[in-house]
Amino acid sequence: MPSDNTPLFNRVALIGLGLIGSSLGHVMKRDGLAGHIVGNARTEETCAKAVEIGFVDSASIDPAEAAQDADLVVICTPVGVIADIAATIAPVLKKNAIITDVGSVKMAVIRDVGPLLPVGVHLVPGHPVAGTEHSGPESGFPELFEGRYCILTPPPGTDESAIDRVSELWRRTGSVVEIMDAKHHDRVLAVTSHLPHLIAYTIVGTASDMESSGRDADATGDDVAANEVIKYSAGGFRDFTRIAASDPVMWRDIFLNNREAVLEILGRFTEDLTALQRAIRWGEGDALEDLFARTRKIRRGVIDMRQAGTFKATEQEAAQDPES
Amino acid sequence: MPSDNTPLFNRVALIGLGLIGSSLGHVMKRDGLAGHIVGNARTEETCAKAVEIGFVDSASIDPAEAAQDADLVVICTPVGVIADIAATIAPVLKKNAIITDVGSVKMAVIRDVGPLLPVGVHLVPGHPVAGTEHSGPESGFPELFEGRYCILTPPPGTDESAIDRVSELWRRTGSVVEIMDAKHHDRVLAVTSHLPHLIAYTIVGTASDMESSGRDADATGDDVAANEVIKYSAGGFRDFTRIAASDPVMWRDIFLNNREAVLEILGRFTEDLTALQRAIRWGEGDALEDLFARTRKIRRGVIDMRQAGTFKATEQEAAQDPES
Repeated sequence: MPSDNTPLFNRVALIGLGLIGSSLGHVMKRDGLAGHIVGNARTEETCAKAVEIGFVDSASIDPAEAAQDADLVVICTPVGVIADIAATIAPVLKKNAIITDVGSVKMAVIRDVGPLLPVGVHLVPGHPVAGTEHSGPESGFPELFEGRYCILTPPPGTDESAIDRVSELWRRTGSVVEIMDAKHHDRVLAVTSHLPHLIAYTIVGTASDMESSGRDADATGDDVAANEVIKYSAGGFRDFTRIAASDPVMWRDIFLNNREAVLEILGRFTEDLTALQRAIRWGEGDALEDLFARTRKIRRGVIDMRQAGTFKATEQEAAQDPES
Repeated sequence: MPSDNTPLFNRVALIGLGLIGSSLGHVMKRDGLAGHIVGNARTEETCAKAVEIGFVDSASIDPAEAAQDADLVVICTPVGVIADIAATIAPVLKKNAIITDVGSVKMAVIRDVGPLLPVGVHLVPGHPVAGTEHSGPESGFPELFEGRYCILTPPPGTDESAIDRVSELWRRTGSVVEIMDAKHHDRVLAVTSHLPHLIAYTIVGTASDMESSGRDADATGDDVAANEVIKYSAGGFRDFTRIAASDPVMWRDIFLNNREAVLEILGRFTEDLTALQRAIRWGEGDALEDLFARTRKIRRGVIDMRQAGTFKATEQEAAQDPES
């Protein structure tokens, strides 16, 4: 591997300049990981903004122009357009170019992108498990990936040196790199990320509907007034609002592209929730207490793993929790 | 109202010395809000610990002994034992004593406690909307209530000066006091707090079961390994673990004592989740995106209301969010 002062790649194309793309640009610029970074976004405005902020050296609204001559192409778009991007850039990719992505589902990327790429181009799908509820080219910051996992899911037979080079890039961002089977990735993330987001979106929507309906099913006509949900959100609701503020298009694509795993995990969740509902209806206090005591232990595990959030959140929790 | 240097109450009894009781003791001691604070807990050990830490002046394992001669009794136990406590202390309460509590449900408190109290004793039920996932006499700190809402739900006809005195106590802790009908309180909190906790408990339990089962429904035998859920929790799951670590007995009692409102809100949530599940199954991307875009706006509302957590969380979010 090159020393810290030598670029890892001569020319890098960032396709998509949202939170992840811009953060990756920032860290590559800060640490000199790329000789030249060319960005691609759908609008001239975003391209100009990216050059102005400085996390790319140049930018184009044409993905093929951006990918031309690139040693590494990082597709940082929502999962739903990755295949279109791949089809557009495939004809211009140079031999031994490496293609990676940052999508939250990996089976669909391998299935849709793999067949489009010319022989001699290496696909190393990736997923940095990092993010905030913010999006767009101005939301990025170079520390986003520090201390977070980045999962790579190269299909069997992928060129080892390509895997090594993508791994090294992510390690330089401060991430811990894990190699995983794509199908397993999609299943694990369905539990740890996709279902939580689905639940958070649902509960925030349910609460919002109660506020805005101006009526409810209570026979006394007792309404939950506008703003009361937000006003008293510190009681628990606010914990859901952060992830329910995540990028809508990105998450639409995740659910549509990890359908089977999400529906299967959702089925388990619904069974468990129904059992809990029944315990409440029938006043089965022991069943409730047993579950609640069990879940408490899991929180300790999260804190112990030091994975309880971004560094800021981790510091906050460490300050609150003498056991951490 | 007395000046800041005069005790609001000569003698205060804190019944229950967990997170809320100990935090209230800390702030009353720090600011001289009580002439004498007597604590009550179930064990001699907790009583001794409370005196040693110093958030009470004296302590007894007998609630009646603690409540004797008190001008204010604050019941800080789980909701399920409040009625028993009230029955125990009722005979010793002095005339014009004020009884309040900190329970997360209020109809049950009024229904169960009101009839037990002698004439001339004033019941002012309360609910500080504040907490952490920690519990016990060592978890309290005087800043817990700062900037948080405290909801009082005095029944019609309650002595106004008693309401004023309890309100002033909570204002002195740094809380914003709101007066609300008890039934309305229970309904609002079912949405903003009880349902979120129920969902968080469920999803953490579901994920834990997948890890520990050592098998799953995937025909390929692909298991989610032990620790993978925690390892990749930064993808969203961790947001649920904090509230799923809340005190098990306290939450058991909340669900059993706010059954109707919780079941009704849960019914709405389940309907909404089923609709979303169907949209995923049938690939209805527009329906998903519409909901996700709508919920994002609600997060902005939470941040705008500056109710997005404890002060530490608010600072953290303010630092991350240029719009706040």
